Amino acid sequence: MEKKVAIFRKEHFNAAHRLFVHGWTDEQNLEQFGKCSNPHFHGHNYELVVKVTGIPDPVTGYVINLSTLSSIIQKHVLARFDHKNLNLDTKEFASLNPTAENIVYVIYEILRKELDASLDLSVRLYETERNFVEYPA
Amino acid sequence: MEKKVAIFRKEHFNAAHRLFVHGWTDEQNLEQFGKCSNPHFHGHNYELVVKVTGIPDPVTGYVINLSTLSSIIQKHVLARFDHKNLNLDTKEFASLNPTAENIVYVIYEILRKELDASLDLSVRLYETERNFVEYPA
Amino acid sequence: MEKKVAIFRKEHFNAAHRLFVHGWTDEQNLEQFGKCSNPHFHGHNYELVVKVTGIPDPVTGYVINLSTLSSIIQKHVLARFDHKNLNLDTKEFASLNPTAENIVYVIYEILRKELDASLDLSVRLYETERNFVEYPA
Amino acid sequence: MEKKVAIFRKEHFNAAHRLFVHGWTDEQNLEQFGKCSNPHFHGHNYELVVKVTGIPDPVTGYVINLSTLSSIIQKHVLARFDHKNLNLDTKEFASLNPTAENIVYVIYEILRKELDASLDLSVRLYETERNFVEYPA
Amino acid sequence: MEKKVAIFRKEHFNAAHRLFVHGWTDEQNLEQFGKCSNPHFHGHNYELVVKVTGIPDPVTGYVINLSTLSSIIQKHVLARFDHKNLNLDTKEFASLNPTAENIVYVIYEILRKELDASLDLSVRLYETERNFVEYPA
Amino acid sequence: MEKKVAIFRKEHFNAAHRLFVHGWTDEQNLEQFGKCSNPHFHGHNYELVVKVTGIPDPVTGYVINLSTLSSIIQKHVLARFDHKNLNLDTKEFASLNPTAENIVYVIYEILRKELDASLDLSVRLYETERNFVEYPA
Repeated sequence: MEKKVAIFRKEHFNAAHRLFVHGWTDEQNLEQFGKCSNPHFHGHNYELVVKVTGIPDPVTGYVINLSTLSSIIQKHVLARFDHKNLNLDTKEFASLNPTAENIVYVIYEILRKELDASLDLSVRLYETERNFVEYPA
Repeated sequence: MEKKVAIFRKEHFNAAHRLFVHGWTDEQNLEQFGKCSNPHFHGHNYELVVKVTGIPDPVTGYVINLSTLSSIIQKHVLARFDHKNLNLDTKEFASLNPTAENIVYVIYEILRKELDASLDLSVRLYETERNFVEYPA
Repeated sequence: MEKKVAIFRKEHFNAAHRLFVHGWTDEQNLEQFGKCSNPHFHGHNYELVVKVTGIPDPVTGYVINLSTLSSIIQKHVLARFDHKNLNLDTKEFASLNPTAENIVYVIYEILRKELDASLDLSVRLYETERNFVEYPA
Repeated sequence: MEKKVAIFRKEHFNAAHRLFVHGWTDEQNLEQFGKCSNPHFHGHNYELVVKVTGIPDPVTGYVINLSTLSSIIQKHVLARFDHKNLNLDTKEFASLNPTAENIVYVIYEILRKELDASLDLSVRLYETERNFVEYPA
Repeated sequence: MEKKVAIFRKEHFNAAHRLFVHGWTDEQNLEQFGKCSNPHFHGHNYELVVKVTGIPDPVTGYVINLSTLSSIIQKHVLARFDHKNLNLDTKEFASLNPTAENIVYVIYEILRKELDASLDLSVRLYETERNFVEYPA
Repeated sequence: MEKKVAIFRKEHFNAAHRLFVHGWTDEQNLEQFGKCSNPHFHGHNYELVVKVTGIPDPVTGYVINLSTLSSIIQKHVLARFDHKNLNLDTKEFASLNPTAENIVYVIYEILRKELDASLDLSVRLYETERNFVEYPA
């Protein structure tokens, strides 16, 4: 087989966050972000689906060993964000608003550096079962 | 970030329908649509996943405010189809056969008019957990 | 092993129904049942979970052969209700209001007759993922 | 039917929390609660399943109108806990450790007061898909 | 709180098995167990839900620390059965037919020994999403 | 409608397999494939999602009749792989390592021959809820 196959690994992490724009008033933030702007934070069980696309190795039949991929996600994403307050405990969202769109982009950028350039990458992030995002689109 | 992110919102509605072609005999409809052509209707819990793709606003970090998107779906799709008989209670399927393919296309056309032209749109519709459709393909 | 084990089999069916009390006015039915009283019906993907409890056969290790149980459910419940209009196509709900409570009770009574008296029976019925019932309670 | 049927309603809320015992050192809390004791909080999508058991009304076929039950949960539980920091924003967990066990008990006590004494009540709470609790047991 | 709360932990393992009775002919086994008696085995993703019931500790609010419970399941159940052939790789099912009923009973007996006598135990095992068992019933 | 719609059908099968490269030592296989290389096999509940894309028939509103598609999958894929040992019972994986990547490719090639050339095809295969693949990528 010389054609590309996509392989997906689903992981999860639990985090607190608050949506707000630095420099906006509380009223502005409440109007734009509603109850998501609660100054004391709320939280989610984030489900993360990492999609890696490449040509399977002709001998092993693997695009990438899923235990390798899982370890990369564990080390570079979960260790950074699991059971954390995204606004207070991470440098990535110290000033960047932790919307699902921004989180999925940040996770993509982190993982992109850890994967071989021959592999394509896409990341989907579920904030709830009914709200989710994907990058690249 | 100047690249596109996709954001998804899942909603649901419950409806009755019957699959049949106007002008066909009962035998023809039964042969083509099986028990789905039952003249007294049957029904489904439809799960709807709306995908909107665009460049996140650099200040808010939102492609689109999900409560805005949810309201649009509520007002233009759910208010029209939820707890309805698609064949008898809607003008869209008065003569058009309410297959999943036709329903997803109709919902796409409804939502396309309500969204800014800068945003891409795709709709997935689950008729059951095992049967679903997507438009555009 | 001489102790009881419970075994569960999940099946599903799709049906249309309308909630209303014969003899009430449309206004009374609308007030009590809301959009569920739509005269043209709406519908659901019903998920049915049948629980049978008994002492496993010491040789086979089976409480009941699940393919036998599945056939019983298929023949006595699904053949009667799948892709049907519960109000119009079934004698059980010709005058009985097809609430989830009444449906689960009717299904229990049907299945109780088909199972050996040494086996205990319980039925759970999901009308949607968020609304479900169980009998006996 | 004069026998009891159980009816279930599933709702959800998102909240932040931190597990710790007032008066313990950080080391003690970390040893007992691990990363759940992060002083800056983490969060969850809590799924709540409320089970109400009673004899269906012989006319309507309802144990309780689910839209009534949903409103009770909305008003007395979700309005209090959704998008909140359980430790900082609620009086219930100002000093009580918000473990799943304690949360489910508190929710039971809240709902018990709102339901007719003829109805039995049980509450299940999912902190994640893999960790959940039920009261009474 | 001096009343019992139930806490659940879900784990999973993947295993191969074959259903057959030693001493029966291939025809007898095929008639009773169908394709599940394939001599070369087939397999499942088993989902295991362990329910532990007890009075929460008044200080910590825990019935049992879930990371302790998860470790017990990991060490005594998953290490024994995950990625194994139940018939060939385990002493428990060397002669006992690995039906879901027998597996759930064996797992219960294993875990019962590892938990404090003050705690009640119940085990549910999903062989597939549609076929599952529970012990004690 | 002259535009393409995608229609999906989800089916499942249970199978045993073992990952290993013929000609490698046990140590090499263990290092690469871990517990998946257990010589006595393990197994999975494989969930298969078949996506067929085409222009709906203007009269029936169907891209393809789902009962036809389901029968094709049943006859050509499930009859071959369900309740089988992929390594021992199938010619496809007699020498080809049954990784998810290789299985999804083999299923694609089987189904591609059975569908009209005007229809596009894509196959997704879940080995577990957390590990899955798709071809073409």
